[in-house]
Amino acid sequence: MKSKTEYLRFCTKKKIEFIRITEDVKRVVHESGVMEGLALVNPMHITAAVIVNDDEPGLIQDFIDNLERLVPYKGKYRHNVGEDNAAAHIWRQLLAHQVVLPITKGELDFGPWEQVFYCEFDGCREKRVLVKVIGE
Amino acid sequence: MKSKTEYLRFCTKKKIEFIRITEDVKRVVHESGVMEGLALVNPMHITAAVIVNDDEPGLIQDFIDNLERLVPYKGKYRHNVGEDNAAAHIWRQLLAHQVVLPITKGELDFGPWEQVFYCEFDGCREKRVLVKVIGE
Amino acid sequence: MKSKTEYLRFCTKKKIEFIRITEDVKRVVHESGVMEGLALVNPMHITAAVIVNDDEPGLIQDFIDNLERLVPYKGKYRHNVGEDNAAAHIWRQLLAHQVVLPITKGELDFGPWEQVFYCEFDGCREKRVLVKVIGE
Repeated sequence: MKSKTEYLRFCTKKKIEFIRITEDVKRVVHESGVMEGLALVNPMHITAAVIVNDDEPGLIQDFIDNLERLVPYKGKYRHNVGEDNAAAHIWRQLLAHQVVLPITKGELDFGPWEQVFYCEFDGCREKRVLVKVIGE
Repeated sequence: MKSKTEYLRFCTKKKIEFIRITEDVKRVVHESGVMEGLALVNPMHITAAVIVNDDEPGLIQDFIDNLERLVPYKGKYRHNVGEDNAAAHIWRQLLAHQVVLPITKGELDFGPWEQVFYCEFDGCREKRVLVKVIGE
Repeated sequence: MKSKTEYLRFCTKKKIEFIRITEDVKRVVHESGVMEGLALVNPMHITAAVIVNDDEPGLIQDFIDNLERLVPYKGKYRHNVGEDNAAAHIWRQLLAHQVVLPITKGELDFGPWEQVFYCEFDGCREKRVLVKVIGE
């Protein structure tokens, strides 16, 4: 079994931001030499998510607008004593926080529109995303 | 390490539909010859999900009704310029879009009520679900 | 490839309860002898979830309060004929029901605040969580 682990680093300028990372994940997959296997892409912080969806700016804003409508960022939360990020913790769960990606013949085995995004919900500070590839 | 990849194909008659695929996934697991490992079941399209839940028709309608209540299909979305499926993109995230299933002694290691469903949110056209088994 | 499977058992006193299980998962990882790999942590019941988030009591109550606000436990559901747990089935999907954890150098490869929780949404009876470790 082969494996490779890499940590992508992000320090967004905005509190809430979606960053496409498909190319970074592909690079790690290629460097791993794994032909058949899985790649886990997992934020190491609990106010961020990694998702697979469409790379369309209107849609990304739709995601943020609907999260805000369902769980308002500046709502009232028990957690927000000295903190202001309770909604960020909840948003990451609503979107599902991590993805496991298939690797076939040395490539991400993706449909035509699948793109990987890092979703920052409490940005402006350094965060890490782990990419872990295992397989053969 | 062994691996097996198969693509299940769906073309639903309805825009929104849940299809039980437990038996298809079991077949792929058996054909893989993997005794201990993992099976990733992942829609290759960004307006669909794969979930594990209960096979009960009332409950499936409850899922659809509550998604519709939280994020209305015919609501107003930036993405819906020439498209009408923004809610489908969001629904798939709210349900969590993919599952990783345990394989023990050559079988899906499931509790008594776990069933795998393909959840189509923008149907009436061909879609694929990837089943990737790895293990030994 | 090495693998190890263990079933954690829970019988909560409350219907709804979050239980930290990071230490149990770490123990299984250590016992597996896997240095590089993945650990799937998956409830075997469809009214429960396993998540990674912050261990802060206020935040846990925020999660429960917001699930209740979005999908009320005592709301009206087709599934609730002789049953009362439809919301529990839906809640587990909204939070994303399972996690895949990275193992690097024999340890869970976690950021500073990541903790694993078993989230029971229909408790007071025995439930199982499967921990499956694969790797090398």
